[in-house]
Amino acid sequence: MRFSKTFVKTLRTAPKDETAKNGILLTRAGYIHKEMAGVYDYLPLGLRVLENIKGIIREELNSIGCEEVLMSALQNPEPWEKTGRFSDQEVDIWFKTALASGGELGLAPTHEEPITTMLKSYISSYKDLPLYVYQFQTKFRNELRAKSGILRGREFLMKDLYSFHTSEKDLDEFYAKVERAYGRIFARLGIGEDTYETFASGGIFSKYSHEFQTVLPVGEDTIYYNTDKSVVLNKEVYTPEVLADLKAEGQKFDETTAAEIGNIFKLKFKYSEPLGLKYIDENNSQQTVYMGCYGIGVSRLMGVIAEKFADDKGLSWPETVAPYRYYLVGIGEKGTAAAEEFYRGREDEVLYDDRSVRPGEKFADAELIGIPYRVVLSDKTLAEDAAELTDRRTGESQMIKIADLMQY
Amino acid sequence: MRFSKTFVKTLRTAPKDETAKNGILLTRAGYIHKEMAGVYDYLPLGLRVLENIKGIIREELNSIGCEEVLMSALQNPEPWEKTGRFSDQEVDIWFKTALASGGELGLAPTHEEPITTMLKSYISSYKDLPLYVYQFQTKFRNELRAKSGILRGREFLMKDLYSFHTSEKDLDEFYAKVERAYGRIFARLGIGEDTYETFASGGIFSKYSHEFQTVLPVGEDTIYYNTDKSVVLNKEVYTPEVLADLKAEGQKFDETTAAEIGNIFKLKFKYSEPLGLKYIDENNSQQTVYMGCYGIGVSRLMGVIAEKFADDKGLSWPETVAPYRYYLVGIGEKGTAAAEEFYRGREDEVLYDDRSVRPGEKFADAELIGIPYRVVLSDKTLAEDAAELTDRRTGESQMIKIADLMQY
Repeated sequence: MRFSKTFVKTLRTAPKDETAKNGILLTRAGYIHKEMAGVYDYLPLGLRVLENIKGIIREELNSIGCEEVLMSALQNPEPWEKTGRFSDQEVDIWFKTALASGGELGLAPTHEEPITTMLKSYISSYKDLPLYVYQFQTKFRNELRAKSGILRGREFLMKDLYSFHTSEKDLDEFYAKVERAYGRIFARLGIGEDTYETFASGGIFSKYSHEFQTVLPVGEDTIYYNTDKSVVLNKEVYTPEVLADLKAEGQKFDETTAAEIGNIFKLKFKYSEPLGLKYIDENNSQQTVYMGCYGIGVSRLMGVIAEKFADDKGLSWPETVAPYRYYLVGIGEKGTAAAEEFYRGREDEVLYDDRSVRPGEKFADAELIGIPYRVVLSDKTLAEDAAELTDRRTGESQMIKIADLMQY
Repeated sequence: MRFSKTFVKTLRTAPKDETAKNGILLTRAGYIHKEMAGVYDYLPLGLRVLENIKGIIREELNSIGCEEVLMSALQNPEPWEKTGRFSDQEVDIWFKTALASGGELGLAPTHEEPITTMLKSYISSYKDLPLYVYQFQTKFRNELRAKSGILRGREFLMKDLYSFHTSEKDLDEFYAKVERAYGRIFARLGIGEDTYETFASGGIFSKYSHEFQTVLPVGEDTIYYNTDKSVVLNKEVYTPEVLADLKAEGQKFDETTAAEIGNIFKLKFKYSEPLGLKYIDENNSQQTVYMGCYGIGVSRLMGVIAEKFADDKGLSWPETVAPYRYYLVGIGEKGTAAAEEFYRGREDEVLYDDRSVRPGEKFADAELIGIPYRVVLSDKTLAEDAAELTDRRTGESQMIKIADLMQY
């Protein structure tokens, strides 16, 4: 991308009511634009980051046999009434709206009810199971407060996966597969080491659910971890009874704040029972389908990664997530000609700062925008037949021969 | 994709209230699932079709310098009140909803107001112009009736592009570029020959707008075209005055029904004036930005293409749009082994019907799903070292040598 051709500019200030670091930096660096608290637009750079995150999640889910769909935001109340979840007392974050032809609709905050209902058209026999269906979909949640930038959205992008099984054993096995896939996803996104699978409260059908919590000062959750981090618990289940159940009593636990970026849940019959999702087994008798659900907050992840790696100069994306790999600057006539040459054919991996501004301003924006590698070509570097390559994270520079750079 | 591994099945029947051919066929063939009138889910095959259509549009728009963003569905009333369009009298298809923290929000039926407002943060000088910004975004329109399958949605996918200029001449030039890009898009989608750029009513600032209308029996619009189809008009402007203005008086016009798949509009100051989108020109004086807007109904396009090419056996996608290029069937032990070999490494272009059902059922589903080429491998074809390749549209079959097929 040529910087001179994009409408996006880096901004000196973010909106006055933006207090979260991710919101301030992503706005100033030109990734997002705030419509209102908890509602953001994604600008070209931000959309590329979202797509990179989606791409990694999609690859890992497809590799374990999941199929992608796209369900609607508008929700018919009927299936939600069967589970009791259309009630504002039960689910307090609904956006509801009136249909012109009569009746009330909801904007989906999640999709258990519609997907369970939809699959009644496709599941009839044990031969149709297991199934794993996911989507990247915009969710709506009518939060009373939303002050954490894109960490907590009223409108946000989520990946939600639902699995369908004939037995608890099969559900357990797939659940373990998703745990491993999530591990690979968060590792590829650069936050694997600081992300813990955390025990959280279950529900009617399960003792525990699991959350994936990334250690983060501004995280809204409090988690407890033992010395070797083999047992990590959300505050809500940090009780003597649970510690005993997990055989962790007497161990020393430390507390930290964290952001929940994913959660997985053995639903079992929670939705399939009230919604009547059944199948005929090998013995020709009718059975209820076992279900699991598995979420990842995609736009929240973008915010978590932004917060996690930011420093006083700006953002610093992991290579796998960054909108571009290189931030290219040419200085002087020769440097600019060499930059143009490097840029050609690399439009998709290079953010080429061809603006008529001072190099110092370009360098500052390179740091603010947080592209992993800065490439500078100038008389000085060309005298050595080289470019200066600077690592955003370490700040270290090296001279790299033009020929080597071209193959990089 | 292996047919045995997908949750989707072809269905004998569509929902009883589904009367549109596109809705019936797309449901029966497993592309979509109806949530309610005008609201559909996109299943794996349907999502692939949508993505193919988006890919072609994206390529052509990027080639004329457009930048992709993603704006929010939830709308703050403020900018819409400035243009008078938050009023239900003015715009009668709003879905509105209440924010928990107070106030009313709308679900965007289009995005002129928010994008004009957003760009006030990024446009200050003539040097910032022109700009072309687009998105693929889910729109919401509270239609009283929605009985045309995915041709008219209450929730639907749209591509909306907005352009920003310093002069009417620059707007006119870009408008002409978009006209040509739309021509290329519809040609690549296989409907170029039946799609006409049609004069339609303008507005305060323009005499005419243009629609792109695809001839279709169930289309909701009526258009008039002269003998050489050089002048095509929407019924709303088919008047003696307009014919005179277009120097087409006295010519013979025929009538047909058509579906509007795109529209382009010179907005000029319609939104920039009330919303205050200004810039400083070369002479340091403040000017109002000229705007244009350019829509394509992406999910509607899917419905139009489905309707247009369907026959009594089912769907028949153009190659550029089809979810897969080949529908693969292996018959007998050897045929199945050869099919498995062909499938390997072609997972992304082959829908491999590996189900344990009769070949006749597979052939019928191949036609219903409408994949461009059917490949059959059997003892009979293998005796000739060949496969049978059948064209979905012509129904013609040819034997093609395995070696040639592998390179195809």
